[in-house]
Amino acid sequence: MKNIAIGIDIGGTLTKVGLVDKEGELYGHLDFPTTGHTDFDAYLDALRNHAEKLKKDLHIPYQIVGVGIGAPNANYYRGTIEYAANLEWKGIVPILEKMKLRYDLPTYITNDANAAAIGEMIYGNASDMKDFMVITLGTGLGSGIVTNGQLIYGYDAQAGELGHLMIAEGGRMCGTGRRGCLEAYVSSTGLKRTVFYLLCDSMEDSVLRDYAFNDLHGEIITKAAEDGDPIALEAYRMTGEILGKQLANFVAYSHPQAIFLLGGLAKAGKWIFEPTERYLKDSLLPFYEGKVQLQPSGMMEKNAAILGAAALVWDHQ
Amino acid sequence: MKNIAIGIDIGGTLTKVGLVDKEGELYGHLDFPTTGHTDFDAYLDALRNHAEKLKKDLHIPYQIVGVGIGAPNANYYRGTIEYAANLEWKGIVPILEKMKLRYDLPTYITNDANAAAIGEMIYGNASDMKDFMVITLGTGLGSGIVTNGQLIYGYDAQAGELGHLMIAEGGRMCGTGRRGCLEAYVSSTGLKRTVFYLLCDSMEDSVLRDYAFNDLHGEIITKAAEDGDPIALEAYRMTGEILGKQLANFVAYSHPQAIFLLGGLAKAGKWIFEPTERYLKDSLLPFYEGKVQLQPSGMMEKNAAILGAAALVWDHQ
Repeated sequence: MKNIAIGIDIGGTLTKVGLVDKEGELYGHLDFPTTGHTDFDAYLDALRNHAEKLKKDLHIPYQIVGVGIGAPNANYYRGTIEYAANLEWKGIVPILEKMKLRYDLPTYITNDANAAAIGEMIYGNASDMKDFMVITLGTGLGSGIVTNGQLIYGYDAQAGELGHLMIAEGGRMCGTGRRGCLEAYVSSTGLKRTVFYLLCDSMEDSVLRDYAFNDLHGEIITKAAEDGDPIALEAYRMTGEILGKQLANFVAYSHPQAIFLLGGLAKAGKWIFEPTERYLKDSLLPFYEGKVQLQPSGMMEKNAAILGAAALVWDHQ
Repeated sequence: MKNIAIGIDIGGTLTKVGLVDKEGELYGHLDFPTTGHTDFDAYLDALRNHAEKLKKDLHIPYQIVGVGIGAPNANYYRGTIEYAANLEWKGIVPILEKMKLRYDLPTYITNDANAAAIGEMIYGNASDMKDFMVITLGTGLGSGIVTNGQLIYGYDAQAGELGHLMIAEGGRMCGTGRRGCLEAYVSSTGLKRTVFYLLCDSMEDSVLRDYAFNDLHGEIITKAAEDGDPIALEAYRMTGEILGKQLANFVAYSHPQAIFLLGGLAKAGKWIFEPTERYLKDSLLPFYEGKVQLQPSGMMEKNAAILGAAALVWDHQ
């Protein structure tokens, strides 16, 4: 009899559902639109139907032992999603309470970056670590910080909002309405903004001059870097400089053994890892030398969102 | 029978020893010079003799249950003092191993800011908190960070070095040989440096123009602020601005319920607390509003260094 967790990742566009065992093997998964349901209850009914379908297709003896959910603005302590800008349900949504009407199972929720950190601990590269952090570099910058073998939730489950560290007084505008937040520089979107800054600032020729802001994405920038495009190369260097220097500050805060990068920008590989590592090394205090590693997440090539959500269940067993 | 811990604070100039019960009552204490001993063993023998003297003077039934030590550059995991710039013993000093030859008792060591945080939890204002931090503002800036009810030591017991966060590219020189560290701005010394920056930058009259750098100290600056001196007022405002903005970043990292300030600069009271609180509030992300307090340490009027060291013993019981 296989113990199976249901892992659910709620994104602004798509919801991903999957069945995962304790070793991180995925026994079927599917996506469906997060939007377009009559109300939140109708959404949860659709979610249950999709999960039931996955269970029906599972041709091994199994039992479902719990449900893990990753969602933006999720509050681990209260089991709620609170004021999520990218979801259509407004205010405070008591998702755990409503899930319990549908599944009589242990159910947990946290934000997606926290789920990624727990996933890294359960199935990724941090299985033997007690102090590490995961930085997710997608549309924004998310973070999950583990110390003493436990995720840092903080007083009201809002620790690890490192995308909103203020790093540049009067700097770039952020979705929060403030200026100078880290994720305005270091994220897939931040990289694109840096390209546009450089297209404005420099006179260099670049293939990137042929792209509209809305058409440009990370893979195009990476391809340009591979072809030696000076704007693409400088954009990655600047992004790595800011990230590396901030990571050195993170080390002085909680001294992780390893920092794992995950998400779209991390997929650029050496283009982002090389400058980040160089500036991290140059910025670290001497007594941290050799005591912190920068690594790709062990979940990079896997379905990290579903696995991270499912990992919440295994973390509570 | 009273259970008593020996609390020891090793400073660059003085070593403080005291006998402390679990409620934080101090049953006698004394200071003796840290320097001038033949070698480290002679220092530890002197330390033991002083502690024995305190025990002899204790006229109640008691038993000593442990020894707690706060020291600069102490490593909690290894029981060592490592490359302490302000102590005369060089390299790695195996203090716990050598203490055990003198006392057959549970013995613990950590750095002074970590000891202060544990003291805050055991005897101070954090007794009902699981997520908080203590910032010590003396010659430098030290920090002890507690999450999930546990001090963050990090991978190699070097977490919480917030005095060396890089906050200003190419900024003021720090004792580490780097430029722009937080403690070069926010500490008793940082305040004095800001006064000297302002004496250079502005043309305003100020009583502080009559002091040499080596003669100026915090109480003189506070007295000047109380008399409405513009340089002193502006120095406190600038210091509070930098501290308040950094504290907002700390909240995004580990979301403490409270941040406690301790040490010489914190003793300036409203002169440092008011601007710090104002800039902290202005810089916090909206969803932290009302969820973090800035407070004086509950150890401010007590012998914080000895109590914090002794608290290590109670924290392990």
